[in-house]
Amino acid sequence: MKIEHIGIAVKDLEAGNALFAQLLGRPHYKIERVESEGVNTSFFQTGESKVELLEATDPSSPIARFIEKRGEGIHHVAFEVEDIEAEMERLRSEGFQLLNEKPKRGADNKLVCFIHPKSANGVLVELCQSL
Amino acid sequence: MKIEHIGIAVKDLEAGNALFAQLLGRPHYKIERVESEGVNTSFFQTGESKVELLEATDPSSPIARFIEKRGEGIHHVAFEVEDIEAEMERLRSEGFQLLNEKPKRGADNKLVCFIHPKSANGVLVELCQSL
Repeated sequence: MKIEHIGIAVKDLEAGNALFAQLLGRPHYKIERVESEGVNTSFFQTGESKVELLEATDPSSPIARFIEKRGEGIHHVAFEVEDIEAEMERLRSEGFQLLNEKPKRGADNKLVCFIHPKSANGVLVELCQSL
Repeated sequence: MKIEHIGIAVKDLEAGNALFAQLLGRPHYKIERVESEGVNTSFFQTGESKVELLEATDPSSPIARFIEKRGEGIHHVAFEVEDIEAEMERLRSEGFQLLNEKPKRGADNKLVCFIHPKSANGVLVELCQSL
C-alpha cells in the first residue's frame, strides 16, 4: 500500500491553496467539488502522493465539524489499494470498524472507504481504489 | 517534494505496531529511540513514503503532550528536501515560522526542521534531508 494522499482540513480553500503553494513550491493542479461530502477539494502533487486540501461547503459537512472541534489540520491519510472490496473484507475480518458498508464514490475518481479512528489509533484512515 | 513520512502519535508502540501491521498488511521494519525528542519510533514502508509511529518515553515529550491534549492520531507530515538549509531560508523569507533555527538530528538518519502549525493551516510540517 502506498500513501495516496493526506487530507488537510482548511477553513478557506483559496488561502490554503496560496499557503501550500508557497510551502510545497508548486501550485495545486486541480480543484474538485464533492457534493456528497459537502466539500471543495484541491490537490497538490508531492512525489507519488498528493496533498488534498478540504474546505467545507456546508456547516454540517464532516470537515466543518472537524474544524469546529479541533481546528484546521491533518484530517485523514489515504492508502491506495488495488481491490477495495477485498481489502474491506480483510480488514473487517481483522476487527477494524469500517465507516461505510460498501465503497463509495470519493474525490479524484476513486472508490473510497473510511476506517473508524477508534480502531486505528485515532487515525482516520481512507482506503481508495482508482476507477 | 515528496512525502517522506507521516508521524502518528501512539500511547503504546507495541500495540501500535501490531495494529498497523494488520492495517498495512506488513510489519514495521525498524525501531529507533530518539533520546533528544523523548520518543521511541517505528517505521513501516508504504510505497516511497513511510508511516512512523511515535511513543513518548517521557511525560514531558512533545508526543506525550500531544496525546494528552488531542489523543492518539496523526501528529505531523514530513516532506523530503534536498538542501534543508536552503529550504529553511526560503520558507523563512516567505513568512513561515520555523520551530528550530538550525536543522537538528532526527530519527532515521535525517536532518530535520519543523514549521509551526500556526503558519501552516494547523499542520505540523517537518522538512527532512537524508544524511
